[in-house]
Amino acid sequence: MEVRSGSLKTGLPARAIADELTEALYQAPGVRIERIVSTGQVTPEGQWYDQESDEFVLVVTGAARLLIEGEAQERELASGDWLLLPAHCRHRVTWTETDKPTVWLAMHFASTGPA
Amino acid sequence: MEVRSGSLKTGLPARAIADELTEALYQAPGVRIERIVSTGQVTPEGQWYDQESDEFVLVVTGAARLLIEGEAQERELASGDWLLLPAHCRHRVTWTETDKPTVWLAMHFASTGPA
Repeated sequence: MEVRSGSLKTGLPARAIADELTEALYQAPGVRIERIVSTGQVTPEGQWYDQESDEFVLVVTGAARLLIEGEAQERELASGDWLLLPAHCRHRVTWTETDKPTVWLAMHFASTGPA
Repeated sequence: MEVRSGSLKTGLPARAIADELTEALYQAPGVRIERIVSTGQVTPEGQWYDQESDEFVLVVTGAARLLIEGEAQERELASGDWLLLPAHCRHRVTWTETDKPTVWLAMHFASTGPA
């Protein structure tokens, strides 16, 4: 495998676009790293993310709000803020900035126990 | 496991300090995520990092230069820049900013093949 490189802050849309952009940066057994770019998208009403694996998520630029099931208040996320969401911790993104892109770095860690 | 959270941009030293700060944010079989804070530190002359596992490294704030063995030029890294360093890709950090902290997010992925 060769050295790969990039910037999380390039190739961003100049204005709000219809869908989130998701780009895989690295994938290996048990690990997937993605850059996600939001421009106002949220998780549709009544839907939750419910993932098989732990997720580490970082807001690189921009801002977002995220609700974790069972919590009374949304969490406010700004640049540099990270969350470690255990597998099956249901959560929804309730707000992302609309006037500039919000860049997320998301890492998913599949179960790596013995087969 | 509970939801954990934090900011990569808090708890930074106000001035250059003697040693890098390394803080583990997440550890699971085959994965370790760390925040590293540099204030001018570099890899000692003649030494190389030579790691057993792939590493994904992101400069969150600050700036650095990194030399990969066999490359003629150092790579300049600014906020948002990432590198995927394959296992045993020898590299050294040749410069980090001295007037403000450089924050790295480093992820190490151990081999997760069958035992």
